[in-house]
Amino acid sequence: MADHTYKFNVKMSCSGCSGAVERVLKKLDGVSSYDISLANQEVIVKGSASYDTVLEKIKKTGKEVISGETVE
Amino acid sequence: MADHTYKFNVKMSCSGCSGAVERVLKKLDGVSSYDISLANQEVIVKGSASYDTVLEKIKKTGKEVISGETVE
Repeated sequence: MADHTYKFNVKMSCSGCSGAVERVLKKLDGVSSYDISLANQEVIVKGSASYDTVLEKIKKTGKEVISGETVE
Repeated sequence: MADHTYKFNVKMSCSGCSGAVERVLKKLDGVSSYDISLANQEVIVKGSASYDTVLEKIKKTGKEVISGETVE
């Protein structure tokens, strides 16, 4: 399946918060790369996984997802 | 089913971390009450849910669970 890029605006207060999101994405099938920016409150995910799959996984961390979009 | 009490030692660095754990427990069926202490790095959960169910849910937050036990 073709890779997509998704961008999420996630509320993260410290490196423990961003680290938690990272640990979850690292284990998710269909994710080829990700970039988590605590400064920008942004999580960028690339992979073959669907938008909903990635969104649900991030939501399960208990972090508030303010917004999300498919970039490409 | 009888209620049990579980105690987990969870690595939480800020109120965003403990808030994430709280949001997840709030939504979990079979949890009647919980107490999350950032200061003590402790999550105490009471309810009819099994130990494994609660543990898995906390792990899905991406937080490191250092230890866990059934208290009663």
